[in-house]
Amino acid sequence: MGSPGVYPVIMAGGSGTRFWPLSRASRPKQFLSLATNRPLIVETLARLKGLAPPKQSFVVCGAVHAPMVRKALPTLPRQNVVVEPQARNTAPAIALATAHVAHRDPHGIVIVIPSDQHVADVPAFQASLTEAIAVARAGHIVTLGIEPSRPETGYGYIQVGEPLTGAARRVSRFAEKPDRATAEQYLVSGEYLWNAGLFVFRADVMLEAFKHHMPELSQALEAIRGALGTKKEAGVVKREFPKMPATSIDYGVAEKASNIAVVPSRCGWSDVGSFNALAEVRPLDDAGNVSVGPNLLIDSAGCVVVGKDKPIAVVGMRDVVVVDAGDAMLVLPKANSQDVRKVVEALKTKKLTKYL
Amino acid sequence: MGSPGVYPVIMAGGSGTRFWPLSRASRPKQFLSLATNRPLIVETLARLKGLAPPKQSFVVCGAVHAPMVRKALPTLPRQNVVVEPQARNTAPAIALATAHVAHRDPHGIVIVIPSDQHVADVPAFQASLTEAIAVARAGHIVTLGIEPSRPETGYGYIQVGEPLTGAARRVSRFAEKPDRATAEQYLVSGEYLWNAGLFVFRADVMLEAFKHHMPELSQALEAIRGALGTKKEAGVVKREFPKMPATSIDYGVAEKASNIAVVPSRCGWSDVGSFNALAEVRPLDDAGNVSVGPNLLIDSAGCVVVGKDKPIAVVGMRDVVVVDAGDAMLVLPKANSQDVRKVVEALKTKKLTKYL
Repeated sequence: MGSPGVYPVIMAGGSGTRFWPLSRASRPKQFLSLATNRPLIVETLARLKGLAPPKQSFVVCGAVHAPMVRKALPTLPRQNVVVEPQARNTAPAIALATAHVAHRDPHGIVIVIPSDQHVADVPAFQASLTEAIAVARAGHIVTLGIEPSRPETGYGYIQVGEPLTGAARRVSRFAEKPDRATAEQYLVSGEYLWNAGLFVFRADVMLEAFKHHMPELSQALEAIRGALGTKKEAGVVKREFPKMPATSIDYGVAEKASNIAVVPSRCGWSDVGSFNALAEVRPLDDAGNVSVGPNLLIDSAGCVVVGKDKPIAVVGMRDVVVVDAGDAMLVLPKANSQDVRKVVEALKTKKLTKYL
Repeated sequence: MGSPGVYPVIMAGGSGTRFWPLSRASRPKQFLSLATNRPLIVETLARLKGLAPPKQSFVVCGAVHAPMVRKALPTLPRQNVVVEPQARNTAPAIALATAHVAHRDPHGIVIVIPSDQHVADVPAFQASLTEAIAVARAGHIVTLGIEPSRPETGYGYIQVGEPLTGAARRVSRFAEKPDRATAEQYLVSGEYLWNAGLFVFRADVMLEAFKHHMPELSQALEAIRGALGTKKEAGVVKREFPKMPATSIDYGVAEKASNIAVVPSRCGWSDVGSFNALAEVRPLDDAGNVSVGPNLLIDSAGCVVVGKDKPIAVVGMRDVVVVDAGDAMLVLPKANSQDVRKVVEALKTKKLTKYL
């Protein structure tokens, strides 16, 4: 089962604040059951079923979250949880995981996949990945580009270039998060795809790319590669990993490499970026409400109500987010979902670290 | 201390739904710390300090609430908790309590006072009651009339008549809850006062009034009076009380008696009728919010946020009520406070009796 030599690397180093009070420092977004009734990270591994077996799948995360990862993903071998000594953005994390894959299988195909996203159409997603794997085998660093459904200003974009093989295209350029007018132009043009942070590449191709585009990182990485599987491994990783520049894979490699390709995908993808996004990924009632838990929604529309075990009664409200995390609650307008960070800032100011 | 022969009767038979999820069948409004950090019924007894000692004070309530009353008011002698065999509106409850007072002191002055109201200016309130007591000694049934501060449509009104003695007036008529236009006329006229359900009378005067205006009630009441203090008391009360018509004291006596007087009072009275009313009786922050508990209000104004022990973060909201009762939560617009009953109805329909 699965393509031979395919190694998913699930990126679980994130620690955001956008889902407070559900998310905490000790319980980041990827461990929350936001899009379905299973944690996002569990859905992420399940989504790869058939492409690669769990024994070929890796998770990269911080040391504090490793026990939670092992508990959430019991089919994953213990040693496939790769611990970052510190959070240093995506390039070092991907480098470390790629070293592990190359140690097993120098030409192995790596699928880098964030642990905290949602995909509605899994067959379409797998079809796109299968196409990306084929392009990666030929030596490209391939990214999945999501066909945009709205002029989203919260994502980076990928402008497609010349056709390559099948649906795959060269990448013309990576574009930063646009303003509204630019996002609308992107949407109308049909030339832009959302950058979902999904990359597919051969391990040796990426190691070569690091050598060319991130020599400082590559030097530390080669030291680590020399120690993998030896008694020195832990010490060398701890010493060398912090030397890698804390850069994103987009900035460090993807925007610079010439062998970058993109496979467009229409797979019902969402980055589940805020409570607002739950209305995209969860079933809605007749009034457009999302309700998780034994809640009572009366005369209310467009609300996102996330409870735990006790009922939340929401009466006569429009477009509001209500969340009960058991030990803290949140109420805010759906359009201001991103203002959750103001709560986290206030908790820090008041030194209410218990709730962070 | 206190006027001789004065007997407060605190009416605690109520069981409303307007404060769900704080209020429940087993924990009605009078036991909630709504206006201050002490339960309304505790504040009610404290408000009478100096007018009558606890040993002369009575509480009328249902059997299920008697233990809570005794616990909340430990200075009250056990036997001063008068248990109604069933809830039958205010006339039977007042009749039963008046019988108890008359048994001790036939000419004793009874102060009937609801257990679930708030008074901001206690000295003004006591001054009004002292005046009412004097008028009651002369043989009148006296009600306290609250000087209106707004065209409230949720209260009954009292139209004042001719001057009696001091500030006391005869009552021209009792008026039902008015519509908005009528309430505005009432306010402008200066002739109308709010009916707060506060009555002061001599026990013998009220017994006589029952005889004239509610003969059926009076007959049952005389049977009870004959048994008070004997071994038959409990049995007779249980048998006779349900025979009394379930009528309000306003309709049964006050609107019919000719010896009705009113003492106008400006004492910062509130019936604390809904969560909305907490903004009248609780301190407000600079943005007009009421917050009870360790809450975080950010970019929010005009909100009423009632927590328990855990923080409620309210961000960017206007004029909303948020309540956490520990085992259930409520969110609704402040202007729709009365829609709490819709939740209670829904809980009944869904047979979620645990939360009723």
